[in-house]
Amino acid sequence: MTQRPAAAAGDKRRVASGLWQVTENDLESIAIGAGILGTGGGGNPYIGQLRARQAIRQWGPVTVLAPEELPDDASVVCVGGIGAPTVGIEKVRDLQSYYALRAIEDYTGATATALISNEIGGSNSVEPLIPAAKAGLPVVDADGMGRAFPEFQMKTFFVYGVPCCPMAIADEKGNSAIIRETVSPVWAERLARALTVQMGCVACYAVAPMTAEQVRQTAVPRTLSLARELGDAVIRARNEGDDPRAAIFGTCPGKTLFCGKVVDVERRTAAGFARGTLTIDGLDSCAGERMVIEFQNENLIARRDGAIVCTVPDLICAVTIDRGEPVTTELMRYGLRVAVLGFPAPALWAAPQGLAVAGPRAFGYDTDYVPLAV
Amino acid sequence: MTQRPAAAAGDKRRVASGLWQVTENDLESIAIGAGILGTGGGGNPYIGQLRARQAIRQWGPVTVLAPEELPDDASVVCVGGIGAPTVGIEKVRDLQSYYALRAIEDYTGATATALISNEIGGSNSVEPLIPAAKAGLPVVDADGMGRAFPEFQMKTFFVYGVPCCPMAIADEKGNSAIIRETVSPVWAERLARALTVQMGCVACYAVAPMTAEQVRQTAVPRTLSLARELGDAVIRARNEGDDPRAAIFGTCPGKTLFCGKVVDVERRTAAGFARGTLTIDGLDSCAGERMVIEFQNENLIARRDGAIVCTVPDLICAVTIDRGEPVTTELMRYGLRVAVLGFPAPALWAAPQGLAVAGPRAFGYDTDYVPLAV
Repeated sequence: MTQRPAAAAGDKRRVASGLWQVTENDLESIAIGAGILGTGGGGNPYIGQLRARQAIRQWGPVTVLAPEELPDDASVVCVGGIGAPTVGIEKVRDLQSYYALRAIEDYTGATATALISNEIGGSNSVEPLIPAAKAGLPVVDADGMGRAFPEFQMKTFFVYGVPCCPMAIADEKGNSAIIRETVSPVWAERLARALTVQMGCVACYAVAPMTAEQVRQTAVPRTLSLARELGDAVIRARNEGDDPRAAIFGTCPGKTLFCGKVVDVERRTAAGFARGTLTIDGLDSCAGERMVIEFQNENLIARRDGAIVCTVPDLICAVTIDRGEPVTTELMRYGLRVAVLGFPAPALWAAPQGLAVAGPRAFGYDTDYVPLAV
Repeated sequence: MTQRPAAAAGDKRRVASGLWQVTENDLESIAIGAGILGTGGGGNPYIGQLRARQAIRQWGPVTVLAPEELPDDASVVCVGGIGAPTVGIEKVRDLQSYYALRAIEDYTGATATALISNEIGGSNSVEPLIPAAKAGLPVVDADGMGRAFPEFQMKTFFVYGVPCCPMAIADEKGNSAIIRETVSPVWAERLARALTVQMGCVACYAVAPMTAEQVRQTAVPRTLSLARELGDAVIRARNEGDDPRAAIFGTCPGKTLFCGKVVDVERRTAAGFARGTLTIDGLDSCAGERMVIEFQNENLIARRDGAIVCTVPDLICAVTIDRGEPVTTELMRYGLRVAVLGFPAPALWAAPQGLAVAGPRAFGYDTDYVPLAV
């Protein structure tokens, strides 16, 4: 998945060699694709889409730069939302990521020249578009996860040597803080999460600028393009009466782990996360079997009749059987007919350094990572 | 109490006109006086004394300046501890207030020329001595409360117009954060408390520098001298077989609210505070009666047989009957024979602006403030 090609040459959205622009027309596709890559989390993609639409309508489209197109002296700020998706659908974000961007610029004295998404999943895939549109900045076609993860430190940037501090965090009321220095990225998560809970369980952050070289070395590339392509493929399949899952796998190799009906969702908002368990009873070829998925904002581990079939950092995503619509954990509900899809993790996560931060043991599961075979 | 005179002329500790120095010999007196003014909180005064002793032994005595002796271009940083005193007696602070001082200097670009205590109660009375000794800075003979209060925003500085942000907060591990901007001082408390809980329920903070004029206008003056004088008086009474309470009231006008034996202490460490209730059964002239005191780090409200006899912002302090030794809420225990003393609040608190921030209603009690008559 990390080797996905850039948008095809001749794409009408390219505005210069290697560039394209995110317009209002791209947002539905990106929301679908980011819903799939979000593995259940990353914030509600539909609300993210609406917010990004408003920003682009008000301030204009946003230019997308591939990592290799960044000027060498670029100052790239990672922005993202933090909190519980269950809260995010009621307490919709405003310009918090813009406030966080300004706060980190003020703190570091460096002016951002491009923004990058913390994670390509859910609403976080489009979160940078909002401050980018407002500030007239480009976004990078890459992110820090290639999927979504629940915790701040779980970014390829930090795994591969980019400092996680200083970082700024801001809410919609006018409160902002800088996490200045921490003994580890996990401590940055602890402090940021505590602030987020006080801020109402929904906030945004901005990390001190990265260089172009750091982005090239540590980001998961081409993920905004991939999200758009995934969404394009799903929409095309719907329009043409094709199987949405075949369209998804044609764009991003993966496999169906299970098909069934959601029979139980146990969900609680705790410690600044949406945590819970999803139970699906099999249909068709899965009849008589049961899949149980545990989630912390994102789907973490899937068991079929008790046997583990997929774990983080591989992607576990539920889509509706009929339309291939991704269903995030905060909207999952009894009765939905879903297919559970699995996709191999980006190579940066499947490496030992990646697994130490976001493998099954990092989430407290006493099991080794077994890469999903597709 | 805010009108206490400066240390008497000719005091051997004066090193220049209007100046004195805090030496190791002053610390026992300050600890006793700050224990009384701390109204049960402010952090354990004995541990504060030991920490200040170590700092002065290592880096030398600390010069004390009256507010009017500050140069007009002074840059005065308020430093203090934050957290639950119940935790502070097990997790002893180190140089966190020094780290917080350096963090706020780094953030604001201003170099401190003097330090001031956030509150004259408990260990916070001497907290500034530690970074002051290490950094070679003077401390101001004043503080932001003239007593102790549990919450960050409860400072005369902020009540009378000094901004509470930016402020830095640091732990002993190497984590630090800046609370950059908040919509109110109460929000600064909320964010700082959340960080403190993560940092292990004990941390230190430093507020962006005040000017000399701001200190003169908003601080409660002469309180470090008052703490030392109170302690001197108690020690003198003990040595000479006099009544310690008479010595206390001779230095700081007040009255005995109750005398009795502690029969119950209900105490819990919750939300970054030590909260609870203290029950005292009367002895001697109070026999047959009962006093119940509710506390949140500090004693907040005292009821005698159900009738309120003293509330914040007036000072409610328990001292041992025999030695006049103040007993803080984290060390209060069954069986102690204590006198409960009341002192009128500093004038800055008894004013309407002060009561709005730290009167009984600010703590959720449905009662008006009735000034203690002495």
